[in-house]
Amino acid sequence: MPTPPTHTADTAQSDQLPRMFRRYSARIGEALRSTLSHDGVRVYDMLRYYMGWVDEDGNPCTATEGKALRPTLCLFACEANGGSLAQAIPAAVALEFIHNFSLIHDDIQDRDEMRHHRRTVWAVWGVPRAVVAGNVLRILADKALQSMVGEGVGVDRALDAGALLTEAYLEMIEGQYLDISYEGRPDISTPDYLHMISRKTGALIRCALNIGAVIGTDDAVAAEAFRNCGSSLGYVFQIRDDVLGVWGDEESTGKPVGADIRRKKNSFPVAYAMSHVQGRDKERLTDIYRMESLTDGDVATVLDILDRAEVREHAQRLAEHHRDNALKALGEVRLAPELRNELEGLAHFLLSRNH
Amino acid sequence: MPTPPTHTADTAQSDQLPRMFRRYSARIGEALRSTLSHDGVRVYDMLRYYMGWVDEDGNPCTATEGKALRPTLCLFACEANGGSLAQAIPAAVALEFIHNFSLIHDDIQDRDEMRHHRRTVWAVWGVPRAVVAGNVLRILADKALQSMVGEGVGVDRALDAGALLTEAYLEMIEGQYLDISYEGRPDISTPDYLHMISRKTGALIRCALNIGAVIGTDDAVAAEAFRNCGSSLGYVFQIRDDVLGVWGDEESTGKPVGADIRRKKNSFPVAYAMSHVQGRDKERLTDIYRMESLTDGDVATVLDILDRAEVREHAQRLAEHHRDNALKALGEVRLAPELRNELEGLAHFLLSRNH
Repeated sequence: MPTPPTHTADTAQSDQLPRMFRRYSARIGEALRSTLSHDGVRVYDMLRYYMGWVDEDGNPCTATEGKALRPTLCLFACEANGGSLAQAIPAAVALEFIHNFSLIHDDIQDRDEMRHHRRTVWAVWGVPRAVVAGNVLRILADKALQSMVGEGVGVDRALDAGALLTEAYLEMIEGQYLDISYEGRPDISTPDYLHMISRKTGALIRCALNIGAVIGTDDAVAAEAFRNCGSSLGYVFQIRDDVLGVWGDEESTGKPVGADIRRKKNSFPVAYAMSHVQGRDKERLTDIYRMESLTDGDVATVLDILDRAEVREHAQRLAEHHRDNALKALGEVRLAPELRNELEGLAHFLLSRNH
Repeated sequence: MPTPPTHTADTAQSDQLPRMFRRYSARIGEALRSTLSHDGVRVYDMLRYYMGWVDEDGNPCTATEGKALRPTLCLFACEANGGSLAQAIPAAVALEFIHNFSLIHDDIQDRDEMRHHRRTVWAVWGVPRAVVAGNVLRILADKALQSMVGEGVGVDRALDAGALLTEAYLEMIEGQYLDISYEGRPDISTPDYLHMISRKTGALIRCALNIGAVIGTDDAVAAEAFRNCGSSLGYVFQIRDDVLGVWGDEESTGKPVGADIRRKKNSFPVAYAMSHVQGRDKERLTDIYRMESLTDGDVATVLDILDRAEVREHAQRLAEHHRDNALKALGEVRLAPELRNELEGLAHFLLSRNH
């Protein structure tokens, strides 16, 4: 399936996000900020810092905020199904908070001191406070979701939405656990890896489209179609993320080329190479991944092996395949042409983004 | 208010828990175990270990299980208000899981390697897995609570219960954050300290009685009375805990006398002493609490100061005061005599327990 030409306007400027993001971003930003506007114990300061709104001292700053992919998808799915945006905002906020909660804890688990060119919460405030900050964000997600009823969502639908989010969150955490379990194991196959990311990354993206649709419509078939679209977009997102983690440009990603190789991070390129290269390259790859830490030379060797096996090209083809599946999933769903166009623009962006 | 004589039968044997615990324990144990019976990624193994059911290798063991105070209070409040126990079980499980989740993360934050004579989760499996294990338990609490609707609880009531639990959980985490913020600060007053524990410890105990009552009855006045009773029991529990942390017998508590002094843990005895001792003792106390680490001699000095200021006696009197308030809170509530007797037995136990 060729890349549809309709979305080019959305991505003509490399620094501009696709239209779907732009359309909802003010609304999402406002909802996120008002939810984190005050607290009694000053733990929200850390959260506002993490969201990119203030610096380490609590002063307003202009750090790049996240793209808010999950809230965007949630609002889109609600609107595409004829629902009220106001009713989907609580779920959108909940999704973004759960995502950020998981990143705050992830940074602790991985001992990552930097994310998006900024120091991570534990690096600034220490592990105990960072664990708590993550947990607070997680509860605020629950509170946000519960506010749905105040927006006129029926109680049954609110309970369904709660159950969907809980399920997605459990899948996500179990995926994180699989990710930790895979660390340092050279025998993780491509299917193992894809299974892990479908939970770790896919669950929340899938849930975003699913929950938005459920808020917007009673049509279970449509909700399922959006859910399937989300599963595929999750793969597109993570595989591209993994490609950027190995071959991304430092200026865009904040990480040097080969960063994920050096850290021996579980990543599609390496899982694929482990399953597909043979002979001498396989031996060298396995030997290098058994080492405690890697030198520049080791990283260069791995990059050579990946190049020879055309791993980058394969990864991109797989991401394209899932992009196609994402669009196909909504093939039978009634969708205004401009919304379908937006979805295509978003899918293309996830496939080709540089940061 | 003198200690009522009616509960003596409950506590005649020091190794026997009061009747309220004994009456619900089988039911609670069964519900907890069935909720943690299987998972796809083996993270539940860590949770079953933490609950005391299996050893580090996953083999069944006979470690002492927790008393399940919060689930017990929840079931009691439901039953006392004429509700169905089956309908309160999901909330009871959720409360116990949230409590244990918080302990797993607390152990990470405090770098505690032992709890109740067993290695903590992070000490056995490392911080990353322990963070995840705690998060999983937290989600299972949500899932448990959501199963309430399947037990015939109305959707409105289920949403109310969810909101109560979320609120309590947020208070608890904010209390943990205050606790971390207070560390190493000699200026924490008794009211500061009581404010902190009313959140950190009180929130979940208060919620246990509140949520049980809400499941059992539409009577908002009764639910409020149970809530107030829980607030007071929370103080009783934590003040006694703090007394045991300083003067507890090693065999019962697993910690040497003065353990919480040595660790400079925020604790009622120290907060009280900081606010009430004067002159030379105040100076010595402040100096010692400014040190990086304490010697046996320092601990002995602090214990002497606490003795001279009769801190232990004062703490116990304060706990008795809150025990009285707990019973008074239910003074106007219609309650079968044997249930009131049980509550008195429980309150007395919390006041006088040795572990």
